[in-house]
Amino acid sequence: MTISDRPLRIAHVGPVATTIPPPMSGSVETMTWLLTNGLVAAGHDVTLFATAESVTRAKLHATFAKGYRDDGTLWPWELCEMLNLAAAVERAAAFDIIQYEAVYYPISLAFTRLSPTPIVQTLHHSPDVAEVALWALYPEAPLIAISNGQADLLRGLNVVATVLHAIETDRFEFSPQSSDYLLFLGRFTPGKGVVQAIEIARRTGMKLMLAGAENDYYRQHVAPLVDNRQILYAGEVDHETKVRLYGGARTLLYPVQAGEPFGLVLAESMACGTPVAALDRGAVREVVDDGVTGWVFDSVDAMVDGLGRVMALDRRTVRDRAVQKFGVGRMVDGYVAAYRRILNSVPVPHTR
Amino acid sequence: MTISDRPLRIAHVGPVATTIPPPMSGSVETMTWLLTNGLVAAGHDVTLFATAESVTRAKLHATFAKGYRDDGTLWPWELCEMLNLAAAVERAAAFDIIQYEAVYYPISLAFTRLSPTPIVQTLHHSPDVAEVALWALYPEAPLIAISNGQADLLRGLNVVATVLHAIETDRFEFSPQSSDYLLFLGRFTPGKGVVQAIEIARRTGMKLMLAGAENDYYRQHVAPLVDNRQILYAGEVDHETKVRLYGGARTLLYPVQAGEPFGLVLAESMACGTPVAALDRGAVREVVDDGVTGWVFDSVDAMVDGLGRVMALDRRTVRDRAVQKFGVGRMVDGYVAAYRRILNSVPVPHTR
Repeated sequence: MTISDRPLRIAHVGPVATTIPPPMSGSVETMTWLLTNGLVAAGHDVTLFATAESVTRAKLHATFAKGYRDDGTLWPWELCEMLNLAAAVERAAAFDIIQYEAVYYPISLAFTRLSPTPIVQTLHHSPDVAEVALWALYPEAPLIAISNGQADLLRGLNVVATVLHAIETDRFEFSPQSSDYLLFLGRFTPGKGVVQAIEIARRTGMKLMLAGAENDYYRQHVAPLVDNRQILYAGEVDHETKVRLYGGARTLLYPVQAGEPFGLVLAESMACGTPVAALDRGAVREVVDDGVTGWVFDSVDAMVDGLGRVMALDRRTVRDRAVQKFGVGRMVDGYVAAYRRILNSVPVPHTR
Repeated sequence: MTISDRPLRIAHVGPVATTIPPPMSGSVETMTWLLTNGLVAAGHDVTLFATAESVTRAKLHATFAKGYRDDGTLWPWELCEMLNLAAAVERAAAFDIIQYEAVYYPISLAFTRLSPTPIVQTLHHSPDVAEVALWALYPEAPLIAISNGQADLLRGLNVVATVLHAIETDRFEFSPQSSDYLLFLGRFTPGKGVVQAIEIARRTGMKLMLAGAENDYYRQHVAPLVDNRQILYAGEVDHETKVRLYGGARTLLYPVQAGEPFGLVLAESMACGTPVAALDRGAVREVVDDGVTGWVFDSVDAMVDGLGRVMALDRRTVRDRAVQKFGVGRMVDGYVAAYRRILNSVPVPHTR
């Protein structure tokens, strides 16, 4: 068998902040979990480098009993993440490829020229120009982008593929009938646009449910606007509650201010059949099929005016498109194709 | 020639926050500078991994034009430090030993098993039990302690030597005659004991000069006590001013609250002939020769009572003992002996 068709030996180095999957929320942990299990399901030989309490269909290599978010004595967190990646690189000869996606910045670069096996890093944020200039010290290091918008920011680096995130569409059940509220779900930061979401609710006279972990920004800027009649706050929610909130919403509001490289809540909402109203930033147009799974707007004013069009979208169609677009199988195929591309471009594997 | 007597090929990986030596203060940068130049003077083949504007007698390998403290676009700093160390490890075959001392926690561990050349890290802080437990994932990684007090904290790890820091005794000129004030010099933190120093000055009726960079702690807790008559503040001082302040002081007050692994200001003060009054914490008893270069006390009360004994010490003797104890040659000999010990304990060098 050639590298083009045989199963691959993959080291997947996940974050060690907590378990895989995460106890509550955690997009990187969730993506790690889905990709690892998906790669196993596709017949590959996968070793997950994660904390000992993680649950996975792959082999598990645990450097740490608990994560540094669960065990406060483990610090600094950067050292923990480095040692987890080092554990995989030390065993590099046992793998065809090392997949990294734990730390938001590419610590994998430091190991690129020390590993006999290629290390590919998936990036989870939108880097600025200075970050990309720094990373260009290792122009050969393979990167996987999570949207074309993000890939555009990575110009000059070795982006081997763009693979959109997946979600577990089975666990985001379709809700044919919604209730009467709008939904904002996510971290409370200026960039996520929660204040704009409240403005939109007030101007359209609709109820708005907020969900996310309480933080300083929430206490200072959001809590004073929560009146428990029109603007409601559900706290940080577990998966079950999250799905119920998505399913009951007329529309997910996504008036994002800072460009995001993906937007998981968009995909999750769609999977429950709930169309989205999103501002045109970052990867929004790649995630949202304009006029099918939601509408993309240029401004808050336009979103207020167009909200009726969003609510009129067919929930069944929204769900079907989400299932087709964000399935785990599609993501896994994208990753495996990227791995094979990397391995084919490395004519003779390095030897130590 | 065997490894026991031939000159060594040494990679010295310094911090990349700023230049080597540092423009103002910076103990790690200063130690890096002294050790590198001292190793060159002793006939070794040294390559310093530092920023391009650094000045050294060694060969210079610069991954970065400027440091991340001087160029705000370089971040996160952890990645910069990792890439600087990686640059040395990538070239490991050209060296007998890699000396690391840039980051306060041992990021060198992550490279320990990937480098064909031993990496030895000097630690600059006093680790707690949890840190040492984490580092014990790499029990073989060689460490150099800067005092026996610090080495005690590192139990279970591979401490190959304790080497006290050196200072440039020529640049801390002897002052035979002092003025009439006490001196506190250092960072303004609760651990350094600046508030206690002020208490001691007030209770003994002596003037106290404070020197150090203004920070939040200074503004909140120290500035209200500065009356510009008895308690004076000189700001952050350059080398020349620092030497003048040391030389004019009757005594350096070092009522340190948290255990420090060394205490550079003690050595610097002594080199200028100024005896020290220190609380018995951390490495104080290793740095101060009790009754010769200063007196060590158990409490602030005891220090108030005993200050006369400190001021009565002979300044010439203080200076002479400091020159003998903190010379660069002595430090360099200690490092080279440690390197040879490491190399002799590695029977056959790893090959890639």
